[in-house]
Amino acid sequence: MKTLGTITLRRSQGPSLQCSLATQLKKMIQRGELLSGERLPSSRELASTLHVSRNTVIAAYDMLVSEGYLESVERSGVHVGRAAQAFQFQLATRARRSIAAVNLRHVEPKTCFRPPLPFRPAQPDVRLFPIKIWNRHRAHVLKRGVNLLHYQSVFSSGLDSLRQHIAEYLRDSRGVRCDWREIAVTSGSQQALFLLANLLIKPGDRVYMEDPGYLGARLAWKQAGAQIVPVPIDDEGACLPQVDSGPVSLIYVTPSRQFPLGTCMSLGRRLLLLQNAVRLQTWIIEDDYDSEFRYNSPPLPSLQNLDENRRVIYVGTFSKILFPSLRIGYAVLPPDLVERFANLKHIAEDHGPLVDQATLAEFMDSGAFHTHLRRCRRHYAERQASFLDAAARAGLPLRFPITDGGMNIGGLFPNDTDDFSCSEQLRLNGFDVPPLSRYSIANVYPGLLFGFTAFEPRTIRRGIQNLATVIEKNKTTAIFKRGSRVERLK
Amino acid sequence: MKTLGTITLRRSQGPSLQCSLATQLKKMIQRGELLSGERLPSSRELASTLHVSRNTVIAAYDMLVSEGYLESVERSGVHVGRAAQAFQFQLATRARRSIAAVNLRHVEPKTCFRPPLPFRPAQPDVRLFPIKIWNRHRAHVLKRGVNLLHYQSVFSSGLDSLRQHIAEYLRDSRGVRCDWREIAVTSGSQQALFLLANLLIKPGDRVYMEDPGYLGARLAWKQAGAQIVPVPIDDEGACLPQVDSGPVSLIYVTPSRQFPLGTCMSLGRRLLLLQNAVRLQTWIIEDDYDSEFRYNSPPLPSLQNLDENRRVIYVGTFSKILFPSLRIGYAVLPPDLVERFANLKHIAEDHGPLVDQATLAEFMDSGAFHTHLRRCRRHYAERQASFLDAAARAGLPLRFPITDGGMNIGGLFPNDTDDFSCSEQLRLNGFDVPPLSRYSIANVYPGLLFGFTAFEPRTIRRGIQNLATVIEKNKTTAIFKRGSRVERLK
Repeated sequence: MKTLGTITLRRSQGPSLQCSLATQLKKMIQRGELLSGERLPSSRELASTLHVSRNTVIAAYDMLVSEGYLESVERSGVHVGRAAQAFQFQLATRARRSIAAVNLRHVEPKTCFRPPLPFRPAQPDVRLFPIKIWNRHRAHVLKRGVNLLHYQSVFSSGLDSLRQHIAEYLRDSRGVRCDWREIAVTSGSQQALFLLANLLIKPGDRVYMEDPGYLGARLAWKQAGAQIVPVPIDDEGACLPQVDSGPVSLIYVTPSRQFPLGTCMSLGRRLLLLQNAVRLQTWIIEDDYDSEFRYNSPPLPSLQNLDENRRVIYVGTFSKILFPSLRIGYAVLPPDLVERFANLKHIAEDHGPLVDQATLAEFMDSGAFHTHLRRCRRHYAERQASFLDAAARAGLPLRFPITDGGMNIGGLFPNDTDDFSCSEQLRLNGFDVPPLSRYSIANVYPGLLFGFTAFEPRTIRRGIQNLATVIEKNKTTAIFKRGSRVERLK
Repeated sequence: MKTLGTITLRRSQGPSLQCSLATQLKKMIQRGELLSGERLPSSRELASTLHVSRNTVIAAYDMLVSEGYLESVERSGVHVGRAAQAFQFQLATRARRSIAAVNLRHVEPKTCFRPPLPFRPAQPDVRLFPIKIWNRHRAHVLKRGVNLLHYQSVFSSGLDSLRQHIAEYLRDSRGVRCDWREIAVTSGSQQALFLLANLLIKPGDRVYMEDPGYLGARLAWKQAGAQIVPVPIDDEGACLPQVDSGPVSLIYVTPSRQFPLGTCMSLGRRLLLLQNAVRLQTWIIEDDYDSEFRYNSPPLPSLQNLDENRRVIYVGTFSKILFPSLRIGYAVLPPDLVERFANLKHIAEDHGPLVDQATLAEFMDSGAFHTHLRRCRRHYAERQASFLDAAARAGLPLRFPITDGGMNIGGLFPNDTDDFSCSEQLRLNGFDVPPLSRYSIANVYPGLLFGFTAFEPRTIRRGIQNLATVIEKNKTTAIFKRGSRVERLK
C-alpha cells in the first residue's frame, strides 16, 4: 500500500481540494503509478498524511468509485479498480499519439470577416442588402410564438410557406413549371448538388459535365465516385458527344449562362439535350446560378420550362440575391425524385435553420425581395458598364466576347497565355481573379474570370488600372510564352 | 402562311400586349400548331389582323427570335425556327409526364409550427431559451460590419471563434481533450454523422452499432451502404463481440448515456472498447447527445478523454441545449481526419449560416450560455422528479431502471408486451411516446421512451394520469398478449 506522499494539495482559488485530490489519483492510475488491485490508504490515514479533513478524502474516493477508477470492498477498504489494467495497454501505444498530433498544421484563428478582393467572381454587394428590413421580418416571425424554435419533423424539405414562395417566384421569373411540393430547400445550392450526387451517382458512373465548368459541381460528382466526361462548349452551349460510349447517370449544365464562359444555350441545343436525356434515360441538372441578373433583356425561360418528360432537376440559390453567408438554396425535383430526395435530406441534416427560412418567406411575401432584386439589377448593370468601359480604356490584352449579364465576365487571353501564372501574379498584388483554366478538364480557354457586382464603380475603375499595370509589367515573363501553360496543366 | 387569327389579345392589367402575343405564339409552336420553317405574317399584316400597333408585333417577334423560337431571314420575313422540330419529339413523349405527375401525393401546406406532444423524447423546453439575450448578441454581431454576410471561404469548418469556445466548453465540462482546430461545426449532429458515414464507410463495410440504438445514426450508416452488426447492451453498456468475423470500419456508441436505454458505460468497458478500436484499426464515434443534463452528480468525463490513440470522434449538438431549429452541432476529430472532414464539408455545403455561428460564439463568451444551461438543469431535474413521482402514483405497468439524468427515461414493459401497439394506442390519444422496440434490430426490450424536459410539472402530472388510463383501457387487448410482439417485429 502506497502512502501517496507525492500528492500535493494547495488551498487556492482553483478547483476544490476534493477535485484536486481525485484528479491526482486518477492521473496516478492512468500513468500506471497505482496498479489495478492495489489497496489505497484509509481515508483517515490519507487525510492525516495530506493535512486535509477526512471528508475531503471520502468525497474524492466516492467520485473515483462512481467513475470506476476505484472499487470499495467491504472490510477491505478501497482498491484500484480492475478496469485500470487497460491503462497498461494504453501506455504501450501512447507513443503513436504524439506522432499523429503533429500532423495538425499550426493555424492562427481568424478573427475578422473579410470582404471579397477585386474582382472575385459571383459575389453580391452585401452592402445593398436591406438588413434592417430583414431583421424586422425576423422579429415579426419570432413574435408569432416560440414553436418555431422547436424541431419540426414535417419540414425536412423546408418550410411549406417558403417552398410556395419559391415556386411562385420561379414560375414568374424563370418559367419553371412546378408544384411547391416539388421544391426542396437546401443549405445553398452546393448541398443540393452534393445530395443529388449521393442520390443519382454510383461509383464508376459516367457524368456529362460542361468543360470548362463549375468546380463545386465537379467536386460533388468526384466525391460520389463518378467518371466525368468533359463536354466542350461552343457558341450555342454544351455539345454533347454524338456517340455515347456507355450509360450516363447525369448531365450537368448551366444553360442560362454557361459557367464560366457565359454562353447562353440555344433553343436548338436545349431541345436536343432534352431528347438526349430521354434517350439515355438520364437526369439533367440545370444549375441556374445567377440568371436573375440580366440587364438589357428579360431573363430567358429555363431549360426546365421546355422539359415535358420531367428529366430536369432545377437548382438555384439565394446566396447571390440576398447574402452568401445565409446559406439557403433549393432544388426543383421531378416527381420521381421528390420522395427520394426528402428521405436523403432527412438523413443528411434534416431541416435547416427554420428562423431564417420563415424570415425569407415573409421577406418574399412582403415584396421586399423584389424591391431588393430590382435595386441590385440597377447597380450591377451600372457596374458592368463601368467594368467594360474601364477595361477598354486600360487596353487589357483580353477579349470579352460575352457580356449580356450575370455577375461575372470571362476575359479571354491569346491562346498561348499562361493564365495560371497571370492569376498568381495578380493574387500577389491583392487581386482575386481566377484563371479560366482552373475550371477546365480537357478544353482550355486561357483567360481570367472577373466578378464586378461586389464593387463600386470607382473601385472598379481604380482596380482595372492597377490590374492593367500588373499585367503590363509581367508581359515579358513566362505568362505569354507559348508552351508554358500546357506543362502546367499536365 | 397562317393568319394567326386564333390569337386574342386583351388590354388588361395583366402582362403587356407584346408579352401576351409572344406567349401565345410560343405555345402554338410548342403544341405543333406552327411548324418549323413555317413563315409568319409580316408585322404589318399581323398588327392589322389583331388591331394592335405594329411596334407590339415587332417587339414580340424580337423576343421570340432572341429565344430561338423564330428566325428572321433577310428579304424572306420571319419563320418558325429549325429548333422547333424537337417539339414534335416532345409531343410524342408527353403522355408519360402526366403519369409521373400523379405520383406526387396531395399534401396540404402546413402553416403552423407545433410544440412537441407529451412525452416526445429529446426535446428541450424552448420557452426557457433567452431569445431576447440571443437577439441582442445577434444585433451586436451584425453591428460589427456587413462582411459577416459575405461568403468566407476560410470558415467551411465553422467560425474560428466558435470552434475555440466549443473546445473550451468541452474541455471544462466533458473532459474532451482537443485543439480548437480539431473541431468542425456542422448543421446539427446529424450532418456530422452523415458526413462521417460518407468519409469512413464504403458499401459493404461492417459497422458495430449499439442495439437498440439511435435511428438517425443507423440511417446514415445504411445510406452509406454499411452492413450493421448489432451490439447488445448490458448493465455496463455495449458488449462488443468476442470474436470479429471480419474488418470493422466504425464503432458507434453513446457511452455517457446509452440511447435509448440510458446505461452509462463502465470504465472497464470503455477501456476495452478503446483497445478494440486499436486492434481492429477502426474509428469510434462517441455520440454525446445529452450528457449536459445530469442532475445529481457532475457529468462523467467522455470516452474521448481516455483515448490515447486518437481513434475517437466525439459528436455533439446545441439542439438540445439552445433550440433544435437552430441546427448547430459539432464533431471533434482525431488529427488524421481533420483535413479529410474539412474537404468533405466544403463539398457538402461549405460553411453553414455564419450569423448564427457568430451569435453563438458571443452567447458563449458572455456567460449567457452557462446561465441558460444551469437554468435548464434546475427545471429539468424538477421535471424528472415530477415524472417519476407521477409514474409511481399512476401505477404504470412499467419499470424505470435508469433515472440518473438526461432528457429521456426508458420504461420497460414485461417481456411479452407489444410496445408497438401500445405506442400506437397512445398516439391516437394525443401522445408521442415511441416504443423502445423501434430502435432495435436484434435485441428487443419492449417499453416506451419518455421525454420530460419540454413539459411543465403540471402537464407531466396530468399527462401521466391520462396515459395510465389509456394503457389501463387497452390492458385486455393484444398489447399484453404473449407472442403478438414477435410477429410484429418480423
